[in-house]
Amino acid sequence: MSYPQARLREDDLASTLLANRAFSETLCAPLTPEDMGLQACPEVSPPRWHLAHTTWFFETFILKPHVPGYRPIDPRFEYLFNSYYNGVGEQYPRPQRHLLSRPDTATVLAWRQHVDEALADLLSRSVTPELAALVRLGIEHEQQHQELLLTDLKFNFSHNPLYPQYQPHEDQAGSAPALSWLEYAGGLVTIGAGDASSSPESFYFDNETPRHRQWLEPFALASRPATCGEYLAFIEDGGYQRPELWLSDGWAWRSQQQVAMPLYWFLNDGLAEHYTLAGRRPLNLAEPVTHLNYYEADAFARWCGKRLPTEVEWEHAAAARPVTGGFVENRRYHPAIAPPGEGPRQLFGDVWEWTASAYLPYPGFQPAPGAVGEYNGKFMCNQMVLRGGSCASSRDHLRASYRNFFYPHLRWQFSGVRLAQSMEACDATPATAP
Amino acid sequence: MSYPQARLREDDLASTLLANRAFSETLCAPLTPEDMGLQACPEVSPPRWHLAHTTWFFETFILKPHVPGYRPIDPRFEYLFNSYYNGVGEQYPRPQRHLLSRPDTATVLAWRQHVDEALADLLSRSVTPELAALVRLGIEHEQQHQELLLTDLKFNFSHNPLYPQYQPHEDQAGSAPALSWLEYAGGLVTIGAGDASSSPESFYFDNETPRHRQWLEPFALASRPATCGEYLAFIEDGGYQRPELWLSDGWAWRSQQQVAMPLYWFLNDGLAEHYTLAGRRPLNLAEPVTHLNYYEADAFARWCGKRLPTEVEWEHAAAARPVTGGFVENRRYHPAIAPPGEGPRQLFGDVWEWTASAYLPYPGFQPAPGAVGEYNGKFMCNQMVLRGGSCASSRDHLRASYRNFFYPHLRWQFSGVRLAQSMEACDATPATAP
Amino acid sequence: MSYPQARLREDDLASTLLANRAFSETLCAPLTPEDMGLQACPEVSPPRWHLAHTTWFFETFILKPHVPGYRPIDPRFEYLFNSYYNGVGEQYPRPQRHLLSRPDTATVLAWRQHVDEALADLLSRSVTPELAALVRLGIEHEQQHQELLLTDLKFNFSHNPLYPQYQPHEDQAGSAPALSWLEYAGGLVTIGAGDASSSPESFYFDNETPRHRQWLEPFALASRPATCGEYLAFIEDGGYQRPELWLSDGWAWRSQQQVAMPLYWFLNDGLAEHYTLAGRRPLNLAEPVTHLNYYEADAFARWCGKRLPTEVEWEHAAAARPVTGGFVENRRYHPAIAPPGEGPRQLFGDVWEWTASAYLPYPGFQPAPGAVGEYNGKFMCNQMVLRGGSCASSRDHLRASYRNFFYPHLRWQFSGVRLAQSMEACDATPATAP
Amino acid sequence: MSYPQARLREDDLASTLLANRAFSETLCAPLTPEDMGLQACPEVSPPRWHLAHTTWFFETFILKPHVPGYRPIDPRFEYLFNSYYNGVGEQYPRPQRHLLSRPDTATVLAWRQHVDEALADLLSRSVTPELAALVRLGIEHEQQHQELLLTDLKFNFSHNPLYPQYQPHEDQAGSAPALSWLEYAGGLVTIGAGDASSSPESFYFDNETPRHRQWLEPFALASRPATCGEYLAFIEDGGYQRPELWLSDGWAWRSQQQVAMPLYWFLNDGLAEHYTLAGRRPLNLAEPVTHLNYYEADAFARWCGKRLPTEVEWEHAAAARPVTGGFVENRRYHPAIAPPGEGPRQLFGDVWEWTASAYLPYPGFQPAPGAVGEYNGKFMCNQMVLRGGSCASSRDHLRASYRNFFYPHLRWQFSGVRLAQSMEACDATPATAP
Repeated sequence: MSYPQARLREDDLASTLLANRAFSETLCAPLTPEDMGLQACPEVSPPRWHLAHTTWFFETFILKPHVPGYRPIDPRFEYLFNSYYNGVGEQYPRPQRHLLSRPDTATVLAWRQHVDEALADLLSRSVTPELAALVRLGIEHEQQHQELLLTDLKFNFSHNPLYPQYQPHEDQAGSAPALSWLEYAGGLVTIGAGDASSSPESFYFDNETPRHRQWLEPFALASRPATCGEYLAFIEDGGYQRPELWLSDGWAWRSQQQVAMPLYWFLNDGLAEHYTLAGRRPLNLAEPVTHLNYYEADAFARWCGKRLPTEVEWEHAAAARPVTGGFVENRRYHPAIAPPGEGPRQLFGDVWEWTASAYLPYPGFQPAPGAVGEYNGKFMCNQMVLRGGSCASSRDHLRASYRNFFYPHLRWQFSGVRLAQSMEACDATPATAP
Repeated sequence: MSYPQARLREDDLASTLLANRAFSETLCAPLTPEDMGLQACPEVSPPRWHLAHTTWFFETFILKPHVPGYRPIDPRFEYLFNSYYNGVGEQYPRPQRHLLSRPDTATVLAWRQHVDEALADLLSRSVTPELAALVRLGIEHEQQHQELLLTDLKFNFSHNPLYPQYQPHEDQAGSAPALSWLEYAGGLVTIGAGDASSSPESFYFDNETPRHRQWLEPFALASRPATCGEYLAFIEDGGYQRPELWLSDGWAWRSQQQVAMPLYWFLNDGLAEHYTLAGRRPLNLAEPVTHLNYYEADAFARWCGKRLPTEVEWEHAAAARPVTGGFVENRRYHPAIAPPGEGPRQLFGDVWEWTASAYLPYPGFQPAPGAVGEYNGKFMCNQMVLRGGSCASSRDHLRASYRNFFYPHLRWQFSGVRLAQSMEACDATPATAP
Repeated sequence: MSYPQARLREDDLASTLLANRAFSETLCAPLTPEDMGLQACPEVSPPRWHLAHTTWFFETFILKPHVPGYRPIDPRFEYLFNSYYNGVGEQYPRPQRHLLSRPDTATVLAWRQHVDEALADLLSRSVTPELAALVRLGIEHEQQHQELLLTDLKFNFSHNPLYPQYQPHEDQAGSAPALSWLEYAGGLVTIGAGDASSSPESFYFDNETPRHRQWLEPFALASRPATCGEYLAFIEDGGYQRPELWLSDGWAWRSQQQVAMPLYWFLNDGLAEHYTLAGRRPLNLAEPVTHLNYYEADAFARWCGKRLPTEVEWEHAAAARPVTGGFVENRRYHPAIAPPGEGPRQLFGDVWEWTASAYLPYPGFQPAPGAVGEYNGKFMCNQMVLRGGSCASSRDHLRASYRNFFYPHLRWQFSGVRLAQSMEACDATPATAP
Repeated sequence: MSYPQARLREDDLASTLLANRAFSETLCAPLTPEDMGLQACPEVSPPRWHLAHTTWFFETFILKPHVPGYRPIDPRFEYLFNSYYNGVGEQYPRPQRHLLSRPDTATVLAWRQHVDEALADLLSRSVTPELAALVRLGIEHEQQHQELLLTDLKFNFSHNPLYPQYQPHEDQAGSAPALSWLEYAGGLVTIGAGDASSSPESFYFDNETPRHRQWLEPFALASRPATCGEYLAFIEDGGYQRPELWLSDGWAWRSQQQVAMPLYWFLNDGLAEHYTLAGRRPLNLAEPVTHLNYYEADAFARWCGKRLPTEVEWEHAAAARPVTGGFVENRRYHPAIAPPGEGPRQLFGDVWEWTASAYLPYPGFQPAPGAVGEYNGKFMCNQMVLRGGSCASSRDHLRASYRNFFYPHLRWQFSGVRLAQSMEACDATPATAP
């Protein structure tokens, strides 16, 4: 496939682009230059690197091919800030990104401005649909890095015993609504993006295509994500000490790493705290549990006598729902207590929801042509799909067909769990589901 | 689920069991006591350990619970030869199995005889369906270890520059039949084991259940596995040097391990050889290529402009086919050249066929109760499904619904590749497929 | 032993202290806040950490015990900036020092000022000899960290393909003087610091004591360190490919790391460059070779048909020599070409000289009492002694008895090689040596 | 140097050789073929490999160069059984020696016989002094491997929870004599082997030469090695939990490996046992403590307020003493309780004694020429010297000047500790020392 030809009017596209570019810098406003270089493990990147790499993306895929005579500020940046595009060339080693103190923050910001001006200039002239699609891809790409910038920062800060505060915390009182079950009859369903009916402005990634049919047996989904309180009950019931609850690889992970609680939690002697972007603070048991990996989500579901949903089930349930929830636009950077109400809550935002589905190509999948074809397709192995977005995702970045994916052992995303269960076919009278 | 109640007549069951037990020892006949302890990496086990562990399985799951007053020869063997059953207890560390020079081979053989006699005695009396099912599970389990015994041995021997010969080689002349494409219309298909129509004697593992529906788009399968010659063309076309052909994890594996050819191959200066259980000998380009891992199979398929089949496609195609091919019963221990003929050849036997499917539970899957429930279910993460069996598998161990699974980086099984492709729905006129 | 009671007049001590404290900050002047956090491997520390740790040293060992009611700026810094003093308490993990973006540079500088003021106040009152000795230890300690700050920075910067320049390079023309041999008769010699004749102002570390006798056979020392040109001849003669020249551990290191030249060198296609604190520039073959580890120094000496000197030989030769050479005070940060002249040149400064002596206690050695006893003694295993100081050492930090020590595989110090050879006893007529 | 021209009469040499060769096989008599392949870590080798490598040594260094037309049984063995002689060629990877199930034990024994016959034939003719010296070196080499065969076997067997017995244990009652101190005045002493006065039949390794002078300050040595009871007191006093007692590298080793007692010890709930070649049995507190590494020996000495002796001190004290103690000839394979008596006991045999000396070349050291020069010299880095031999050493392999060496973290040799202390020079009246 090629990326959908976004039909935004040209000046809408330019203003969306520049607003989004500015938002990346806004997110860095509370950070010191010292913070801008932090990298606590190979999977995370320094904030400054995120600012640079997203700029690299526009320079490499848009300015160089589309602006005759475009002069990069420094040709060496092509190598330094290439993440993983072998089609572009070699890459600076990922685990060493924290060693790039130069270009410093000021230089990176100047580069951003240089690129933004060139982009604005380019978009002020005639924009082909292909170019518009690439710009839109660049915007979505930068939104993903905005989310990573926050989750990487949280991971990095958590290694500092001073537990830095990114922004003050606003407390949230109250309790989560009781969990209920929403039933779905299944049958032959269609999922994925890109059918004829999709709006011409809509954007989606190649990995969401083609839209295709799947057979679903009857199932039910929990009305909301699991809470910290529910997860604490799992811990207190010896959940981390009972191998029968765990996948074999999960049990090995737990044993080798000596894990006994979610990432960022501190439990001892009655104390129950966690590290948040507001610093270290008491656990709020009504909040959705987050920073679980797949193994933990799966073990918790088994302990509940339930299971994780498949991505097909999830998308089928979410397809008709509005994209509402807690997003990065809220500037809260932490999942909120589920609101009361009917139907599934927090399908979107707050916490990513691990599914039981491996990240694999849809039937008939073709990656986008050229180097941007490396964006998604080459990762279709060893990872699990998450759905719905988190408190660090942009609302307009998300949709029902959106597929996120991470290795099952990773915990630094805002990843939580929504329970599912299979229903007897004969009972499949969808009661509360829309 | 509980395991199907095998309805073999009791004396058939006993004689099948004892013949199968004897076959394990027959496979060890060409080995020295020194060979019996080899373990070249944590994933493989020494031959002696296989003989002991399969005996442990019968003692633990059948004799101890079903024979009042049963006296094990040595109670410490429960710990030493438990592979991964946390429900039974702690396990001796897997990477150290080669350090168990005691019990020596003679002691293990005496233990086998002790257990066989107790089993024969038990089965000479009234056998409940549940017990018969467990015995059948033990037989199938031992068949799996017979296959591993051979593949592990090949891996171990390959580390010895003397390239030991397990048995002499019989040469096979001729060429492979031209590859053709068998088309399948897809639609709503049913796969898995255990429906009402299955014969009461039939055996299947819990991971093949429940039998369930899946939707398939039209597809085509290659008429035979890819050959060494076809794979050599991939190598000579720079297949191992072109990142665009590889999954990201596969490219990382290739780069870190500096891999440039299948396991056991030697290519240089015009020389093309490989290590086999008959020692080191020239490559026969007409034979199916084997000892590929998932990354290599996937990259080769992409180079061909094709893809790997899903396990649903594979099973749908194989369901109506007889289980014919090269199996361990042939005592050849090497894949044979595909025979001429119509329809898919070598679906069964010769080489396992990597599928594009992650090893995950079927909808509604329930592991068998008790410790034997650890047999399959807990491995449903991070592995890929292989189908069809190999030259080291027992013919009566295989069936269309059989699911094998390995991590994508592993190569020491007889694992090969059958190409697949998606068809336009409108063209889906199943020509040659049955 | 306790540290020698430095008899500096109190105001000399205070002014020396404050000048030295200021020099640490001066060294950081060319650095950005981003540079201040760099740490490319566990052995090196970020510049900001060096500024903080040296402050911690004064706060921990001087202010807290000697200033009643002293209030640290932040009590958590005790843990964060403890390097390895188990007697003080637990330490923040060394490999993670780069993750301490907070306290930021401004906060560390404010802490320095706070501590400096408290020290100045303390020293403005009556100073006991014990306190003066501790202050002097703190000054020497900070000098060591000034050297590390530079060598660590060079190592960190070298990972950046932009090859940052710390300060511009001043070129040095000319050639090194021809190497000649200085002979020493040996016999019963005395080495070490701390005899009755040492001046009351003199400082030395506990590891230089007690002053003691050693027997020396006749030997000769090269008149200057080996040059880049001499080392290049070793490389071009296949020095890195000939196992007979190497210690077994050295050959293993070379093979595993695939080393073929000194750290920071780039040799290919006639190009001969190295990274320096002035950026990447052409090798000057007349300069002393540096950034060798012990294995390389030893292999080079063997290739020359010579050996490394022992530390006893070195100290015996150096004892009567003035401390002249290239030091950090020059602000050149790179070894200079050896000057012409008689006698041994560059014994002090320019490059540390690997000796053939393991770092072990002298006969009768007693570490200093209390936590500062961890300063030197506990490292007396697995390291080799270097002598003489480098272009990054302070001149007044050095003396003939000074013992530096590093693991034999490490290369990031300015470490070079001075050849030695044994002489026949009968020939031992010390010709040119003083 | 070249190896001393052993002046054994030719038939003495041949009979000594053949008796020694036979002893290697005798040591393997209690082992099964399965035991013959055990290798639990890279540092140890399988018994079969020891039998083969010692044969390789004679074939490579004696038969091939000295017997025209000599035909090896299998030319591939040159590669398989070369330990570390780069001068001979590449080596099969050391960590994989356990994978060489072929050649099997019978083949190795046949090879031994082939080589022994060729040696006997060679020695039945005129033997040059150079050849005699090489044969003697081969004998000493095989004695070293006999010791390793036993210590490696103990290490390997200890990984088997069945705790195999190599031979039954003979109990030893009684207590160790009280520890007293033997004083030595020091001064200018001479150590090392190879002076004019050494008997023409005497053998020594190149690393013991040249005989040379050293200056010694007054010191005292403990009258016997430390006992298990004394070491238990160190443990019970928190010895493994007190960083101030440990070298920095030792504390890191202890912490990473979570060590709390000597190798092979089991301490819990009042139980005090250890694994021996007689199986698992109660600790005998009167026996010398053994299987300590350098870090443990050093920490124990520091806890005692003492230190380890240097190798010069040790050799000076041992030079005039007879080589008496517990050796491999006793076939006891375990250190014995120190006998009562005057003077230093168990200087030789029972347990190797860690010294405070790094393994470095003596002044003027020259390795033997040719590939046998790799025997000792290339290991002169990172290791510490042990003196005196153990219960697994041959008595006629030992002498006062003998230097053994191991890395400081290794524990699988029979290595113990004899305390030393420095004496005030004025008090140095050697009271009880001979």
